[in-house]
Amino acid sequence: MEFGHIILASASPRRKELLLQIGIRPEIVVSHVEEKVSSDVPQEVVMELASQKARDVAQTAPAGSVVIGADTVVAIDGQILGKPATHEEAAAMVRHLSGRTHQVYTGVCLILKGKEKDRERIFFDEADVQIDPMTDEEIAEYAAGTEPMDKAGAYAVQGFFARYIRGIRGSHANVMGLPVNRVYQELKLLLGGEDA
Amino acid sequence: MEFGHIILASASPRRKELLLQIGIRPEIVVSHVEEKVSSDVPQEVVMELASQKARDVAQTAPAGSVVIGADTVVAIDGQILGKPATHEEAAAMVRHLSGRTHQVYTGVCLILKGKEKDRERIFFDEADVQIDPMTDEEIAEYAAGTEPMDKAGAYAVQGFFARYIRGIRGSHANVMGLPVNRVYQELKLLLGGEDA
Repeated sequence: MEFGHIILASASPRRKELLLQIGIRPEIVVSHVEEKVSSDVPQEVVMELASQKARDVAQTAPAGSVVIGADTVVAIDGQILGKPATHEEAAAMVRHLSGRTHQVYTGVCLILKGKEKDRERIFFDEADVQIDPMTDEEIAEYAAGTEPMDKAGAYAVQGFFARYIRGIRGSHANVMGLPVNRVYQELKLLLGGEDA
Repeated sequence: MEFGHIILASASPRRKELLLQIGIRPEIVVSHVEEKVSSDVPQEVVMELASQKARDVAQTAPAGSVVIGADTVVAIDGQILGKPATHEEAAAMVRHLSGRTHQVYTGVCLILKGKEKDRERIFFDEADVQIDPMTDEEIAEYAAGTEPMDKAGAYAVQGFFARYIRGIRGSHANVMGLPVNRVYQELKLLLGGEDA
């Protein structure tokens, strides 16, 4: 199935790579919309932010194109973990994840630009990620490195932290930033004419 | 934690990449042992083959080094799926996986070469992989490509087939060919002096 002109409203190289992997070559148009959320529930936050990014970019997208907006958060006990500002914050986050299962949520908004009316589909995908118990030495070693510093939840699933990831339940692509299986299925529905 | 001299008894570039990801830079020494198995149970087959490869390479490995052997199979209903020889076989395999959950097993054998006596740890890791129902058109399109042709079970988790992978339960690294989380934990035990 061909999807025509796809615009990815995200600067994330991993999201682009994931789309390329499944045969979709997106144009990249980064949204600079100010992110505002009305909720602190992770599932709602990611859908709100994905929608804001997609709608911003859709304003200037040509008819017939599809805009993809996405937002990913790491959460534990229903609380979103941000990006650590210091190595101390990184150590505290990693200590919080150690020996437990946390959640990764990616919200996605697909907008099919129409000549008069647009069509949208908005959804989120959840994955559980199980982390092995880490020793104090392992936490200190990981937190002292550069890997955790610009990452939500202080880790990268495709990085050194794989040492400690016992397993996941859900979409690995979601944990990387874009659940491409679900995106593919939803694109088929959107282009097939079904509204969400 | 440092692991010293690690020898990977596998030509798989993905296994090497996974070790590099977790900070282990292996020497590659490929075993050319003739693969013989006494079982057709997937979990036993992968451990037998991993051991044969590791033991073969360990014969010439220096004392103090660790040899890693690994073998991965795709199985459904307890039956191992091989590599398709033709596009027709690929289509039949993919049709078998469509809309169902199958298993990926990786067996691993770690051998710590001693001056007099070696120490070994042998284990397997299992992951469940859930595939979306595929249409006849999707099966035909996928099977006609080059991706399924040299792959056990006729697919690559890191390829175009990600379109159809709804999710996994277990280690994504295992599905790629080497469960590096478990390998890391077992290396710690092996070098810490515990026998399997």
